[in-house]
Order: sequence, then C-alpha cells, then structure tokens
Amino acid sequence: MQADVENVKIWRLSDEPGRSVEDIVAREFPLTIILNDRELVTLLCSPADLKNLAIGFLCSEGLLTNKEDIKKVLVDETRGVVRVESSDGKGDADEVFKRFISSGCGRGASFYSAADVTGVSKIQSDVTVSRFEVAALFKEFQHRSELYHSTGGVHSAALCDSKNIIAFSEDVGRHNAVDKIFGKCFLEGISTADRLVLTSGRISSEILLKVARRSIPLLASKSAPTDLGVKLARDMGVTLLGFVRGARMNVYANEWRVHDTRP
Amino acid sequence: MQADVENVKIWRLSDEPGRSVEDIVAREFPLTIILNDRELVTLLCSPADLKNLAIGFLCSEGLLTNKEDIKKVLVDETRGVVRVESSDGKGDADEVFKRFISSGCGRGASFYSAADVTGVSKIQSDVTVSRFEVAALFKEFQHRSELYHSTGGVHSAALCDSKNIIAFSEDVGRHNAVDKIFGKCFLEGISTADRLVLTSGRISSEILLKVARRSIPLLASKSAPTDLGVKLARDMGVTLLGFVRGARMNVYANEWRVHDTRP
Repeated sequence: MQADVENVKIWRLSDEPGRSVEDIVAREFPLTIILNDRELVTLLCSPADLKNLAIGFLCSEGLLTNKEDIKKVLVDETRGVVRVESSDGKGDADEVFKRFISSGCGRGASFYSAADVTGVSKIQSDVTVSRFEVAALFKEFQHRSELYHSTGGVHSAALCDSKNIIAFSEDVGRHNAVDKIFGKCFLEGISTADRLVLTSGRISSEILLKVARRSIPLLASKSAPTDLGVKLARDMGVTLLGFVRGARMNVYANEWRVHDTRP
Repeated sequence: MQADVENVKIWRLSDEPGRSVEDIVAREFPLTIILNDRELVTLLCSPADLKNLAIGFLCSEGLLTNKEDIKKVLVDETRGVVRVESSDGKGDADEVFKRFISSGCGRGASFYSAADVTGVSKIQSDVTVSRFEVAALFKEFQHRSELYHSTGGVHSAALCDSKNIIAFSEDVGRHNAVDKIFGKCFLEGISTADRLVLTSGRISSEILLKVARRSIPLLASKSAPTDLGVKLARDMGVTLLGFVRGARMNVYANEWRVHDTRP
C-alpha cells in the first residue's frame, strides 16, 4: 500500500527568524477506473484502499448492484489503474462517461500530467510581498466572508495586490469561487499579473494549475496544500503559502517572494 | 440576482429542550454553460455572478483567451443557463467535454433532477439514535482522523451503528472517503441498512444522493448542508444532522430519528 502522506521541506515564517522545516502533506493520486475494458473516470484521491474506492464509485454511480456480478478486480498501484470486470449490464456507463458536472466543492478538471502543463509557461514575476501584508489581506478577506459566517457552507476567493483586495467572490464550490474572480477580471480588463490569490479552500493540483494558467505568482490559503499542489507550484514558479494564521504561515514553494519587512 | 442563501426551518438539539428555529443555508444552483450552441458542462454553484463564473470557467479550461473573441453572453437566471458565443477556435471543447475527472474535494456527479432520483426509493428505516450516541461517535471519529490532524488536507467518513464505527476512511476528496466506505461494505458484505454515516465535509446534494442510494437513514456532519442537500434529505426520508458539536447539533430533516435519551 502506498503512503497517504509525503514529507516536504517548507519554509516557516513567524515572529522567530524564518527557518526550513520538514512538514507532511497529503498525497493526491490519480486513479483511473476501467470497467469492462473501457476507461470510465480518473479520480484524484488518497492512494490507500484503491479497490474499495473503485468498487464504491461504481456502486454510487449505479454501475454495480450485486457482489456476484464482479468477475475480476485488478489493482495496479504503480500505474494508478483499477480494472473491473462485471457482468452487471444494468447501469448506463455511457451516461456516467458523458457527465461532466461539478460538485459543490470541486469539479472535473485536470490532474498533473504533461498535457496539462503544455502551454503554461513558468511564472517570471519579480513581485514580492511582506508576511505582514499577507496577514492584513487575510484579515480583510475574513471580514468580507460574511456569507461563510452565516451559513458555514461557502468558499471565498480574492485577487489582491500587496495592499488591497481587487476582486472577491464566494461560492459553494472552491473552484467556482476562483473562476468567478477570473471571469470578472477577464470581462472588466483587470490585470492578474503580479497579483496574489487568496482562497479559503485547500490547495489541490487543480487550483494551482488554474492560478498558474493566469500567470499569477502568489497563492495563499488558510488551509493545507496537497503534494501535487506543492510540486506544481515549484515547477511553475508559483509562491505557495498555506496555513496562514495572522503573520505566521508555511511557504511551500518559491519562498523568495515573501519577505519579513514590518509595515 | 438570485439570493445565495435560503431560510430553512430546522430542529436544534442542545441541553435546552429541542426547538424549531429558522436557519440559513447556502444555495446550490445548477448552471449549464453552452458554448457555441453546444452544452459543455453543468456546474453546481452559488447563484450569484453567473456570467463571471461561465467566462472564468471557459478561461480556466483554455476555451477563451481574448475578450474580443466573445460575441455574445446570454444569462438566463431562471433556467440556469449561460450561452456564450465565441470566435475562439483554439481550445478543444471536445477534450473538456470528454474529461470526467475528480477533484481533490469533489467530483463530477449528479445534481438534483428527476433522473437522479429515479430508482431511489424513500428510506423506510425505523431506526433512531440518541444525540448523546451521536456525540460519542463523533468523538471517536475525530480521534481516528489522525491523518487529517497531521496534514490538514484530508476528509474522513465513517459508517456506524448507534454504538460503534464499523468502517472508516480518509481521502483528499470527501466523495472518495464516502465511496471507500461503501466499496468496503459491498466487498465484505457489511450491511448499510439502519446505519449512520459521519462525514467531515459539507453536505451537498451529491453526498446526500450517494447516501440515499445506499438506503442509509442517517447522515451527520460537523459542517453545513446546502439547500439542495436539505431538500433531498426531506424528500428521500434521510435524517440530516449538521454542525455537530458534542451533543449539540442541528437537525435539517426527519428529526424524529434523533432522541434525547441520556446514556
């Protein structure tokens, strides 16, 4: 069984001098489910219990009803593939295959592969930000997240320069919240270059890729990143901040863009 | 513009006598994006800034690069449709259409429509649970969520009877965590009838539907439900608990399955 977590070297910023420490991040593993020789779906998941995940997914999608219908289940952990042979003809795999519908919290999008990064060039911005500026931005960000406070079920995202929030949005989906900001910037001609994106949600590879595609050099979250999020940030030249708590934060990639100057 | 939240009547359980109160939940709205007369995707989102969301989604997916390429954007808030006409021929809509890939936190699945509920019969279970039993189960659930505590980026799910956790799983995706439990039950012949599912994540319509399809009468979360989650729970006969904090909790649907008996 593969480990669900991975050790990464990070840069920890606090009132003590910044220092490099070992931290643990959750792994994000692409698993492809093949049903009766047909590629059905690729899920991004934690790499444990892959057989349970594949079978549970098929049950949830109505493609598997009785245990007796399972003819064979082959798990290839190295390649990230589970092959299932089933005699259940009831479910409509075509229907599942065709659907591409968002969830409240995420949606179908790309995992980290060569194809995904094609056309995304490494971010060149020289912009820097102070950890105290990040703290002030997050304070304002929290303040604006009123909907979140009233219902508890909504994610927020914001586009900022080092001093101000330029665009802010909320949505039941963390991907949607980020896309609403980008849509606004696109329609209103607001530049995203040299900017910082704040998000209330976790940093998965998909969110990282979304931000890198807009050439945004800094991404910050109150929450944790995944290992693929960290890897992509390093490869794409994005400065990735997680667990922001006031002026304390973890820097997972490209820490040179965050400095310690007090306001 | 449509409201992002909706008022619902809930049942609040605490050390005071249980009482009916008004609460606010986030709305979950299906938005279909049609690009050049082709239905591309249906997102579940908060129903504000639909134009920004549609355009931002197209940008993120590489289907829109220049503002000048947009010929027309028509937003139909009533039907939940945004039609975009674009002269951008660069992006590969076929590729986007074909992908059905999970995110770290959710994945493509169904929103609430007649088609989704076909074949799911209303849950008949007479099982009940005490709010103190729910509190004890959540205490054990939190204890087991060690991976969550170490990385902060993982969701947990569990299948329980009124006394014990029967199956437990963790995953970077809240949907995956639930499917891993169902897969285990399916493969090992563990009955899900009369059981309770615990989740660390928010209750969207998709999670509710997944649980209802397995005929599970009780679903409980530390977090909030959406309006569609509440509606589905009421329609399908699922008892829905949210914001569980010790023996205090909100009951959003079918409160008769939760009683006040001390252990």
